[in-house]
Amino acid sequence: MKIGIIGLGLIGGSLALDLTNLGYHVIGVSRQLKTCNQAIERSIVSQASTEFDILAQTEVIFICTPIGSILITLERIIKHLPPDVIITDVGSVKGSIVPQATELWANFVGAHPMAGTANQGIEAVEANLFKNAPCVITPLENTSTKNVERVKNIWHEVGCKIYETTPEIHDRAVAWISHLPVMISANLINSCINHENQEVVNMAKKLASSGFKDTSRVGGGNPELGLMMAQYNKEQLLNSLKEYQQNLSLIINDIETEKWENLEHLLTKTNQERPNFL
Amino acid sequence: MKIGIIGLGLIGGSLALDLTNLGYHVIGVSRQLKTCNQAIERSIVSQASTEFDILAQTEVIFICTPIGSILITLERIIKHLPPDVIITDVGSVKGSIVPQATELWANFVGAHPMAGTANQGIEAVEANLFKNAPCVITPLENTSTKNVERVKNIWHEVGCKIYETTPEIHDRAVAWISHLPVMISANLINSCINHENQEVVNMAKKLASSGFKDTSRVGGGNPELGLMMAQYNKEQLLNSLKEYQQNLSLIINDIETEKWENLEHLLTKTNQERPNFL
Repeated sequence: MKIGIIGLGLIGGSLALDLTNLGYHVIGVSRQLKTCNQAIERSIVSQASTEFDILAQTEVIFICTPIGSILITLERIIKHLPPDVIITDVGSVKGSIVPQATELWANFVGAHPMAGTANQGIEAVEANLFKNAPCVITPLENTSTKNVERVKNIWHEVGCKIYETTPEIHDRAVAWISHLPVMISANLINSCINHENQEVVNMAKKLASSGFKDTSRVGGGNPELGLMMAQYNKEQLLNSLKEYQQNLSLIINDIETEKWENLEHLLTKTNQERPNFL
Repeated sequence: MKIGIIGLGLIGGSLALDLTNLGYHVIGVSRQLKTCNQAIERSIVSQASTEFDILAQTEVIFICTPIGSILITLERIIKHLPPDVIITDVGSVKGSIVPQATELWANFVGAHPMAGTANQGIEAVEANLFKNAPCVITPLENTSTKNVERVKNIWHEVGCKIYETTPEIHDRAVAWISHLPVMISANLINSCINHENQEVVNMAKKLASSGFKDTSRVGGGNPELGLMMAQYNKEQLLNSLKEYQQNLSLIINDIETEKWENLEHLLTKTNQERPNFL
């Protein structure tokens, strides 16, 4: 089976590499010729081009561009394709993508593989990136179940754990566990550097250890990705941020008024509950 | 040289193990006989006891108990000791420990090695835990520089990068990069589980990936440690929490009013600045 992948960055490139290693004929499309050449040289794909018409021979196409380009890319490619081609995406937001994409292309299936590293671009491509990562498929009521199964099977083959839900539940869930963490983590870094006392900031930089490193990781990641999360999942992210902030006020109040039993209860609960997320 | 270590948990036990491996004669003290036996069996220490009088033969003593027990422990051991013994601690807060400890024992040197894992107790002990970890020494004006040098040298030998500052600057810096992260991370877990829609919570648990894992790590850690941070570094932590919360309001406002250029600027800055903390 010939599979098309548009966008050969961390996600698209790593998916291409795994599928090539599984024996698929993978055709990559990138805006940059240099990326196409690199993808061929490193055996990430079998063929690559900067032109969309090369995708006409594929059966399933993965749009692996940044979220903001998914719908534009879809509009541009469909004129090159026979109508039975399945098109899917890897966008981290689904509600603002899937209904519109499905209107443009009936054989569209929304998906979101939740894998990544701090790096980006084709240089960051790695084999087995998706092993044990969750991948959410978000069909609409009128999405063909046969198409859903084909997309699920491909993600299953590269090692993902497959889940299925609506775009809305997906977006609310990822606002909590993916987009909110980016904002609170970025706010941590920003608050630490904006502090008025330079002696404190300098010592903080020297002393920052694994705790700061982990808590600040996603907030120090790709700015374009964080911005897209906020733009494309605005309402759900705002709900989460506001609830988060209200809860933070309660913690501040407990510390201020020395209600240590409340804080202890909270920290005991978070200690017990965290493993349920891992 | 004989070194005493009180408290054979993650920090005390790992320090004991490294010092034993370096050829020191390490004498451990634990409240629990079982821990003493385990420490001897695993060659973490040369001798161990549940009684403080065994420490009379040592030259330097590390108090590696939880913060809340440091001063009580100090008070209890000093009657067993000749006055030239150097006593030091590993507490993650210094302002509420060092001045009082120094009044009780002139040869006290405050220190804070910043290493750790998610685990605790003697089972969590590991060799080379302190390799490349920062260790802050926080002498007062009247602290003997000779004693400071001896404590520095020992931490240097187990691989720490040594820093020196006042207890106050230390506490302000760690509020930012260690204690604040625990609270915002715990608040993340708590906010995610308290959400009213169980379908969203269940999907969030399934989808939580490396981003949530890292951002929630310190908030899901040892509750006793988090509580102690708030109790013993209350004022500095509150200052950081309030500044953090004000900054979070700005982010919420930027998203709400779609000031995307502000958010992009912030995320670009945090992306650029984070490496300065690592």
